[in-house]
Amino acid sequence: MSHAFPPLHLPDPGTAIQIREVGLRDGLQSLDRVVPTAIKTAWVDAAHAAGIRQIEVGSFVPAHRMPQLADTAQVLAHARTLPGLTASVLVPNLRGAHDALAHGAHLLLVPLSASHAHSLANLRKPPDDVVADVARIRAERDAAGAATRIEAGVGTAFGCTLQGHVDPDDVLRLLQALLDAGADQVSLADTVGFADPGAVARLFERARRHVGDRLVGGHFHDTRGLALANTLAALGQGVRSFDSSLAGIGGCPYAPGASGNTATEDLAYLLDAMGYATGIDMPALLSLRAQAAGWLDGETLRGALGLAGLPRTLTATPAP
Amino acid sequence: MSHAFPPLHLPDPGTAIQIREVGLRDGLQSLDRVVPTAIKTAWVDAAHAAGIRQIEVGSFVPAHRMPQLADTAQVLAHARTLPGLTASVLVPNLRGAHDALAHGAHLLLVPLSASHAHSLANLRKPPDDVVADVARIRAERDAAGAATRIEAGVGTAFGCTLQGHVDPDDVLRLLQALLDAGADQVSLADTVGFADPGAVARLFERARRHVGDRLVGGHFHDTRGLALANTLAALGQGVRSFDSSLAGIGGCPYAPGASGNTATEDLAYLLDAMGYATGIDMPALLSLRAQAAGWLDGETLRGALGLAGLPRTLTATPAP
Repeated sequence: MSHAFPPLHLPDPGTAIQIREVGLRDGLQSLDRVVPTAIKTAWVDAAHAAGIRQIEVGSFVPAHRMPQLADTAQVLAHARTLPGLTASVLVPNLRGAHDALAHGAHLLLVPLSASHAHSLANLRKPPDDVVADVARIRAERDAAGAATRIEAGVGTAFGCTLQGHVDPDDVLRLLQALLDAGADQVSLADTVGFADPGAVARLFERARRHVGDRLVGGHFHDTRGLALANTLAALGQGVRSFDSSLAGIGGCPYAPGASGNTATEDLAYLLDAMGYATGIDMPALLSLRAQAAGWLDGETLRGALGLAGLPRTLTATPAP
Repeated sequence: MSHAFPPLHLPDPGTAIQIREVGLRDGLQSLDRVVPTAIKTAWVDAAHAAGIRQIEVGSFVPAHRMPQLADTAQVLAHARTLPGLTASVLVPNLRGAHDALAHGAHLLLVPLSASHAHSLANLRKPPDDVVADVARIRAERDAAGAATRIEAGVGTAFGCTLQGHVDPDDVLRLLQALLDAGADQVSLADTVGFADPGAVARLFERARRHVGDRLVGGHFHDTRGLALANTLAALGQGVRSFDSSLAGIGGCPYAPGASGNTATEDLAYLLDAMGYATGIDMPALLSLRAQAAGWLDGETLRGALGLAGLPRTLTATPAP
């Protein structure tokens, strides 16, 4: 592990960087409460109004397994009415994909865990079975003639609370296998908050050499405070899309100790401050966060910007 | 502001990176309580035992202006007994420097604010008067034949809550003026939490082209969650020493809204995870943080690692 880190080439200011809001799925599934559909659609509306154009609205899983997401079809139907919005849903298997295609999701997110132990605990099958699922989902999508895209996300890509070390070679092999099986795009996730910027720079550099621009996104957790530093490293390796969750809610219920997606408002602030084009209206996003504090009263909300607010004088003209 | 960012070249794993603990000065001066000397010396002992070799132990200012630091001479005397420890003190003027030299401080930290408004509010003099102070302090140091080093820290280098924009050209001019006046080394501080990684990359790149290796350090605040991302950018521009405060206590009492130094344990975790040689024993540092929670009962402590703990399985051997 004493090799040099690859250099980071940050994109120029003005470059478009996408934020995908995953709070409605990754966030809400980690809470005990069931948030009413009307609040979810209000959240989707407010996120869209604040300029967010990628929202993971839910997951097609059996309602008894995840009652928090039982209304995914309704939230998806609402999200589909908003102009320019890409509504994605998590689908853990072919049955979920079938439902998602039937309901017109724009993007299917198929999760895979590079950690064998985490895969068994979380998805109840080994990683290669998920690759086989992706092939079946692709066939179903193509048979339906749907425009829906398929993204396979490789989780525990930087290590795993259950298994410990995850071999980067396994991650690269799985990325390639998922694309070969028919995924349109792939992403890497630090499911349990083990990544550091050096590991991110190395893995994304290797992964992009292997699979190029079809590696579209990064999903980081702020468990140990490194989410934004990891984001910076991924930006410097060509990643242009990042998952995050309003107020940092959520994490992975199957990884003991893991908590805290990147907070959307902190990620948006980082990108905005660096001059990237996120399309996000920061005050509107902070208003949504304040609203969410009411909707999720009693839950632990995270993120620095929610406490500090936007800097008032940062863009002020120099004094004469 | 649409120019490209300079590339970041992260140092190789194994590179020595210094952490300077500033909680005993920057942290404690922001609290209303006066921490007893015996606790401060226990803190210094525990930080030293955890491997920290740079500690800002206090400030030589009139006791009535800052009663929290009135025992700086005693804490300094104790710190000087610990092998390998560099004990620094903040000195706002010639009188403070005189006292610090008399008490054998290893390093004098002279603060300057690049923001004229912040300089007047915080130091009660304009930036160029501080440059003149540094020349007098240097003369006093040389006349005393002391081995004490002089570091001038340029604060509000990335903007100011009072003044707004701070011109990078002013920052560069002040760095050069401070070195010309006799400072041995200089550093840059984001006193109010306005920096972003792009601004950090740009300013440190320009500053190091101007003044080279005599620019030794970075001091970042986590006000809006960017402290570690900013640290990464500075690492990629050759900075090898960073200030931080145990549990993130402190900030700048003269900058409205500013709060939160980088948390030492989060910074140490970042550097440790990337394989850098900090000399820090992470479990010992976390024990110190737990102790500090008792010493500072009732204060707001920050930092992610204090909540999440060290990853238990991260360095585990791969499963067979």
